[in-house]
Amino acid sequence: MTENIRVGVLGARGRMGLEVCKAVDAADDLTLVSMIDQGEELFQASSAGAQVLVDFTNPDVVMDNLKWAIEQGISVVVGTSGFSDDRLAAVRGWLAAKPEVGVLIAPNFGIGAVLMMQFAARAARFFESVEIIEQHHPRKLDAPSGTAVHTARLIAEARAAAGSPPMPDATKEEQLGARGTDADGVRIHSIRASGLVAHQEVLFGTSGETLTIRHDSLDRSSFMPGVLLAVREVRKRPGLTLGLDALLEG
Amino acid sequence: MTENIRVGVLGARGRMGLEVCKAVDAADDLTLVSMIDQGEELFQASSAGAQVLVDFTNPDVVMDNLKWAIEQGISVVVGTSGFSDDRLAAVRGWLAAKPEVGVLIAPNFGIGAVLMMQFAARAARFFESVEIIEQHHPRKLDAPSGTAVHTARLIAEARAAAGSPPMPDATKEEQLGARGTDADGVRIHSIRASGLVAHQEVLFGTSGETLTIRHDSLDRSSFMPGVLLAVREVRKRPGLTLGLDALLEG
Amino acid sequence: MTENIRVGVLGARGRMGLEVCKAVDAADDLTLVSMIDQGEELFQASSAGAQVLVDFTNPDVVMDNLKWAIEQGISVVVGTSGFSDDRLAAVRGWLAAKPEVGVLIAPNFGIGAVLMMQFAARAARFFESVEIIEQHHPRKLDAPSGTAVHTARLIAEARAAAGSPPMPDATKEEQLGARGTDADGVRIHSIRASGLVAHQEVLFGTSGETLTIRHDSLDRSSFMPGVLLAVREVRKRPGLTLGLDALLEG
Amino acid sequence: MTENIRVGVLGARGRMGLEVCKAVDAADDLTLVSMIDQGEELFQASSAGAQVLVDFTNPDVVMDNLKWAIEQGISVVVGTSGFSDDRLAAVRGWLAAKPEVGVLIAPNFGIGAVLMMQFAARAARFFESVEIIEQHHPRKLDAPSGTAVHTARLIAEARAAAGSPPMPDATKEEQLGARGTDADGVRIHSIRASGLVAHQEVLFGTSGETLTIRHDSLDRSSFMPGVLLAVREVRKRPGLTLGLDALLEG
Repeated sequence: MTENIRVGVLGARGRMGLEVCKAVDAADDLTLVSMIDQGEELFQASSAGAQVLVDFTNPDVVMDNLKWAIEQGISVVVGTSGFSDDRLAAVRGWLAAKPEVGVLIAPNFGIGAVLMMQFAARAARFFESVEIIEQHHPRKLDAPSGTAVHTARLIAEARAAAGSPPMPDATKEEQLGARGTDADGVRIHSIRASGLVAHQEVLFGTSGETLTIRHDSLDRSSFMPGVLLAVREVRKRPGLTLGLDALLEG
Repeated sequence: MTENIRVGVLGARGRMGLEVCKAVDAADDLTLVSMIDQGEELFQASSAGAQVLVDFTNPDVVMDNLKWAIEQGISVVVGTSGFSDDRLAAVRGWLAAKPEVGVLIAPNFGIGAVLMMQFAARAARFFESVEIIEQHHPRKLDAPSGTAVHTARLIAEARAAAGSPPMPDATKEEQLGARGTDADGVRIHSIRASGLVAHQEVLFGTSGETLTIRHDSLDRSSFMPGVLLAVREVRKRPGLTLGLDALLEG
Repeated sequence: MTENIRVGVLGARGRMGLEVCKAVDAADDLTLVSMIDQGEELFQASSAGAQVLVDFTNPDVVMDNLKWAIEQGISVVVGTSGFSDDRLAAVRGWLAAKPEVGVLIAPNFGIGAVLMMQFAARAARFFESVEIIEQHHPRKLDAPSGTAVHTARLIAEARAAAGSPPMPDATKEEQLGARGTDADGVRIHSIRASGLVAHQEVLFGTSGETLTIRHDSLDRSSFMPGVLLAVREVRKRPGLTLGLDALLEG
Repeated sequence: MTENIRVGVLGARGRMGLEVCKAVDAADDLTLVSMIDQGEELFQASSAGAQVLVDFTNPDVVMDNLKWAIEQGISVVVGTSGFSDDRLAAVRGWLAAKPEVGVLIAPNFGIGAVLMMQFAARAARFFESVEIIEQHHPRKLDAPSGTAVHTARLIAEARAAAGSPPMPDATKEEQLGARGTDADGVRIHSIRASGLVAHQEVLFGTSGETLTIRHDSLDRSSFMPGVLLAVREVRKRPGLTLGLDALLEG
């Protein structure tokens, strides 16, 4: 019989953290050993013997959390957003000194979202144009979302590999920001409104037709199957893993 | 028996201009007397006895066209975009000297689009948040579209009248342009992609629900009923008229 | 100082009933005096002095509940679905004997939904075609939804008043049910899928353009403002009131 | 230098047929040798030396066209809808006697549509529910569309292979047709409205999230790249080929 994985949650009283606590608690093969939120000490997690931490905190503290956990030899599943290339490089640096530790940073744990991204990458070379519209609740701190930035990167790579020409765009008079932000050559538009949860639309267009791939996450519970999968897998994948994709295909 | 209205078209070889020529030609109560495009002289229209001009040109020349037409005493229906408050003030100035002339400037001649705007104005006070997403073919020169800017203004007026508080938005880290452009306090996002024609979505949100009003114009023919209505009515409405609304309700 | 309205809830342990109990309890001007669910006796509500009952039960018991409440002189706000013309006639009959009692039956308490219906009724005469697509969670018992049937009726009345011709439809080979159900001449399509909550789209089309009005209710809390408004108003409106419309415009 | 392929078009004066004629005529490697419409004799195509026929006719005549073409040893690309299993069996029978002839029957020649179907098949096993909403202009004769039926079959096969349980659906009171038609266990809803061209949405749902794949074909020109690809490939693929998929992946 395999022993349960001992899990600590950082940001445990936040909306997502709370869901994670519930989901870990309900899973037969996981044991929730530590719930930490702001003002509380990280060493509670190591004292409690956590083998995997789940971090749904915020961009201001996540780097400190990661540095500490990696030093302790604890693997981490990260749902916090705001990872720039610089930040990723720093994490890779810390991991170099701890080759047995795994860190999985995913901009999105919804399996539907991951499929959306995989389909977007696959469709990219067949269409002249593509733009991303992401829609979230107005309490979100960053714009665009990590999922949108990640989707843009995948699309840009697929277009580059296929030798796609630049997208057509005759805009001459633009009010600042109207055309969204440019992420790897793909325009992203970030909607923020009450009543929304987490939604993303990838719009592809070519002469006479469009193909739209849309993901709607109406409930934080939709992320939990993906989070639990990552918790179970992260220790088997030392180093830095970005996104759920590898786990879904593996 | 009433005599036919004598109509000239400016921008007659453009996509919209061509449709207008066809539609005027096919209408029993209108006579197409002049088709003018760039490089051709405006006085052809006055020589031909045009009573109403329809202008689907571009922001660079429309002001000269309007000044000339008003001086000649010819009423004008304008579908060209890019009218700032300064430009509208200039037109009003020219009209002051010619009290019998009518000018109707409409950001959109689709009856569906006008209904969309009326509904948006009416819904505005019941929702905490509202954003506009407009989607057009990639040959469009301006962003956002005139329709979107006009919709934003109507929504802003309705919210101001109802004393609506500012919309919630916790964005702290924004990549330049991600949150779109701010038009009278309403965010507008402009998508440009092949395969699109002319589309606009107004998204309202409040706790737990959203209301979306979407207009899709798949074909330039959809604008023609509105253009012809304006041609028939513009001389009865001296001075400056903005939008089709008054004509629909009158 | 006005006294609080004493409210009882039928179906109090159902999903909607529970939300109503919370919302009534949280409202300063209402007092929750009775929570009744299946297997419990209605007279508990009268014993507790309920002045208004809110019924979110099911089509099998709602008629008995209404008959009893009207006889007791208690006004009722009804969110239960499945009201045929026969059922409405029965309710009107019971109310005839109790002229001081008010019953408000609303297929939908979302203010967004009511606006959707008002806009649909207003747009109806300008378009050749209109169809309704309603989407709900798979636990819903009836198809189409009450909201969809009500919307169809409003559209049909507006089209009849405007003398609209029949909608174009060349379908010759139809697999049974493909074209949806016919409600007052308007086609309704009922989608049922996990991950959905309560959504409706009204699609209008004419040559070259479509206008879509869509309402998404992501959370039962979105209905509460409408339910509380109805509770406050129902005793001022003796007899049978259908829908929130009158309350919004009054 | 390869010789041009000699192409005949059946249904040459229909909307799609006309586009095909233009597209074949404009392609450097194809020669348009015969344009046939109702009332005209098929032998014109064989007399003109057609090597490939493209059939966009209607369900009443397509079987006769196919039988004749196969007997003549001419390969056929078919866009006409309405192919039942019986009809496919008949075509296979005729082809058995002519092993060198290829017939490609595609419910949809839009590359976007084919991607939509491939993505739908791939997503199918990850979601509890899936329904198809197809939307077309009101001149369409059949409901549901061939594309929708084909999509349903692919989804059903993927779900069967994954051992997916039946979809949840608690509907107890259904107005006839509200829940659409059942195609291989997948519900299809067919919208018909002016202003539409050819659209399809595949809606997947599971707890807390939905994934929607939507294809909009706004213009018949969008089908031409797929039709020309099929014309070039059909003779290399003797026997019956269903759909563009194999051509896209090959």
